[in-house]
Amino acid sequence: MIIDCHGHFTTAPKTLHAWRKKQLDGMHDPAIALKKTDLVISDDEIRAAIEDGQLKLQKARGGDLTLFSPIAGQMAHHLGNERTSLLWAEVCNDLIHRVCNLFPENFVGVCQLPQAPCVPPASCIPELRRCVEQLGFVGCNLNPDPSGGYWQDPPLTDRYWYPLYEEMVRLDVPAMVHVSSSCNPCFHGTGAHYINGDTTAFMQFLLADLFTDFPTLRFVIPHGGGAVPYHWGRYRGLSLEQRQRPLEPLLNNIFFDTCVYHEPGVRFLTQVIPIDNILFGSEMIGAVRGRDPNTGEYFDDTKRYLDACAHLSAEERHKIFEANVRRVYPGLDAVLKKRSVVAAASL
Amino acid sequence: MIIDCHGHFTTAPKTLHAWRKKQLDGMHDPAIALKKTDLVISDDEIRAAIEDGQLKLQKARGGDLTLFSPIAGQMAHHLGNERTSLLWAEVCNDLIHRVCNLFPENFVGVCQLPQAPCVPPASCIPELRRCVEQLGFVGCNLNPDPSGGYWQDPPLTDRYWYPLYEEMVRLDVPAMVHVSSSCNPCFHGTGAHYINGDTTAFMQFLLADLFTDFPTLRFVIPHGGGAVPYHWGRYRGLSLEQRQRPLEPLLNNIFFDTCVYHEPGVRFLTQVIPIDNILFGSEMIGAVRGRDPNTGEYFDDTKRYLDACAHLSAEERHKIFEANVRRVYPGLDAVLKKRSVVAAASL
Repeated sequence: MIIDCHGHFTTAPKTLHAWRKKQLDGMHDPAIALKKTDLVISDDEIRAAIEDGQLKLQKARGGDLTLFSPIAGQMAHHLGNERTSLLWAEVCNDLIHRVCNLFPENFVGVCQLPQAPCVPPASCIPELRRCVEQLGFVGCNLNPDPSGGYWQDPPLTDRYWYPLYEEMVRLDVPAMVHVSSSCNPCFHGTGAHYINGDTTAFMQFLLADLFTDFPTLRFVIPHGGGAVPYHWGRYRGLSLEQRQRPLEPLLNNIFFDTCVYHEPGVRFLTQVIPIDNILFGSEMIGAVRGRDPNTGEYFDDTKRYLDACAHLSAEERHKIFEANVRRVYPGLDAVLKKRSVVAAASL
Repeated sequence: MIIDCHGHFTTAPKTLHAWRKKQLDGMHDPAIALKKTDLVISDDEIRAAIEDGQLKLQKARGGDLTLFSPIAGQMAHHLGNERTSLLWAEVCNDLIHRVCNLFPENFVGVCQLPQAPCVPPASCIPELRRCVEQLGFVGCNLNPDPSGGYWQDPPLTDRYWYPLYEEMVRLDVPAMVHVSSSCNPCFHGTGAHYINGDTTAFMQFLLADLFTDFPTLRFVIPHGGGAVPYHWGRYRGLSLEQRQRPLEPLLNNIFFDTCVYHEPGVRFLTQVIPIDNILFGSEMIGAVRGRDPNTGEYFDDTKRYLDACAHLSAEERHKIFEANVRRVYPGLDAVLKKRSVVAAASL
C-alpha cells in the first residue's frame, strides 16, 4: 500500500475561504457573527474538489491513501482570536470528515487545532478529542508558532504544551509539527517559515527532555525535516556538546516525511536518516504545484523520487510507504486492519 | 592554496568579553562609559590565542589562509544601541586587524558591522569603509536580523538596505549573510537561528529584483546555504511559480560555503550546487567543537569531507578551495597577487 502521510485539502471550495474572510471581518461585531451552519458546501462540491484535485493525483501517481488535513497555510492562528480559531478549526475539521466519509478508501483525517498566539494549548484538547473520538481522525497538526512568524509562544518542549501532549498520549495520536502562513515580511510562508519551523522544532526537541517525560509521544517533522538531515552532523555534534548524549535516541519519537522536491534530496534523506524514521509524504497541490521544466514531471511527485532510489530494498520501500506510517499513527493501522477484516468477511 | 572563507576569532582573549559586558552594564551611565582604550590586550595574548586556536587547526588540517572576522555570536546587535554597537564593532574589527598584522600569511580580515535593530543600515557605511580602505579588510558580515530572533527589520531586499549595498558595490566587497546570537527562546543560536537565517535570506533574494538593481553585489550564504541545497527542487519550483523565472541566475550573485558537518552533506552540496558557487569554509572552533565518536575526527573539519569527495576533479577542488573565493572577494585576490609579486621580487 502507498500511504501519503501529508495531504491538505488545498483544493477546498472557495466558499470555505469566503466564510473565513467573513468570519474575520466580523469578529468584533456580534451582529454579523457567523455560525458554522452559515457555510453551505454540498457533497457534490466536495466530490468535485477532491476528484479533480488530490484524488486525481493520488491515483495518477499510484497512491492508495492520504492522511488528510485542513489547509496548513489557512490555519492562520495569528488571525482572529481563541474563539474564532475554535470555530474555524471545527469548520475545517468537519469538512475533512465529510471528505473522509465520501472517500473512505482514499482519505483518513488529521485535524487542525484551534490554537491562538499565547493561549495555552490545553485549549485545544476538546477539539482534538472530538476529532479523534467522534470523527475518527488519527493525528493532528501542531503549530509551533501560532503568532505566524514572530515566535512568541514558548518552545514546544516547555511545560506550557504538556496538557495537550498528555491528551495526545492518552489518545495515542501523533502530531505533525506544521506552521501556518507567515505574517512576518521577512519570512515567505512555504519558502522560509515552513522550513524554519521544522528546523526550529527539531532543535527544541534536541535540547530538552520531553521524551523522558512522554516516552510514547510522537512527532512527524514535515518537509523532509527542514534543514535537519542536511545538517545531521551539526545536530549530532550539538547533541553531544549541549546535552552530552547521542542524538540518535531522539529518533524513537521523531519522524520525517519525504516532502523534498527533487530526486537528489529524497535520495539523500533515505541515505542519512534511518529508514524506520521516514514516512512517505508529498503535500501535493501545495507549496510547489508546477512541473519541472527539465523533466516534465511535477516537483511534488515525491513517489517518483523514491521509486528512483535504486538503493532501497523492497522491505525498505514497504516501511517508507506503509509500515512506518501505520506504526506512527496507530489509529490509521486500526482503520486498515478493520477494513481488511470486513473485506475478508465479505469474501 | 587552501582558503577557508569562514573563520571567526572565537578564541579571543577573555578580556574582550569582559570589556563588552562592562560596556553593556554601563550603557546608560556616562560616568562609567568605556573607551576603546580601556581594552588592553597585548600582542602576546593575541599570538597565544591564535597559535593555540585557529592557526593550530588551520595548519593541522592543511589550510593556508582564513578570512577572519569577529565572533558572529558576539556581534549581538540586539544588545545595547547604535552607539554601543559602533564602538563594539570598532573594537572587534581592530582586534581582527591586529591578528592579520601579526599573521599576515594566514589571516585576512572581514568586518563586523555596527548594526542595531530598526536602525537604517546606512549607519554602517563609515565603519565598512574604514575597515576596507584603512585596515585592508576584504568583506563584511551582514546580519539579516539585528533583533536577534524576532526579525523586525525589513527583508534584505528592501530599499532600506540599499545605501549599504551601494557602498559594498563601490568598494567591491561581498557580504556573508550571518545572523548573531538569538534572544528568542524558540531559537537555539547555532542550531536553529543560524540555519534559519541562511534559508530566510535566500528566499528573500529569490523573490526580489535586488540583483537587477545591483548586478555585481555578492552574498555568501554560510552553513552550506542553510536548508537551501537540500530543498533545491522546492526553490526551483518556487522561483518558477512566484516569479515566473528560473532560479539559476541567482547564482550569479549568491554563493554557499561548505560548513556542513558530515561527509554526506558536503558531498550532496557539491553534487547539487554548481561548483563555481561553492566556497570552502569550516567556521572552525565554532558551533560544534567536538569530535565525532564514530570517526575520531572533528565535526568541523570540513576539508576532510571535501577530500573524500571522489567525484571532484582537481580543477573543481581548486575552484572550491581557492579560485572561487578569490573571485568573490577581489580584495583577497589583490592581496594574494601582491604577495606573489613581492615573493618573486625577493628571489
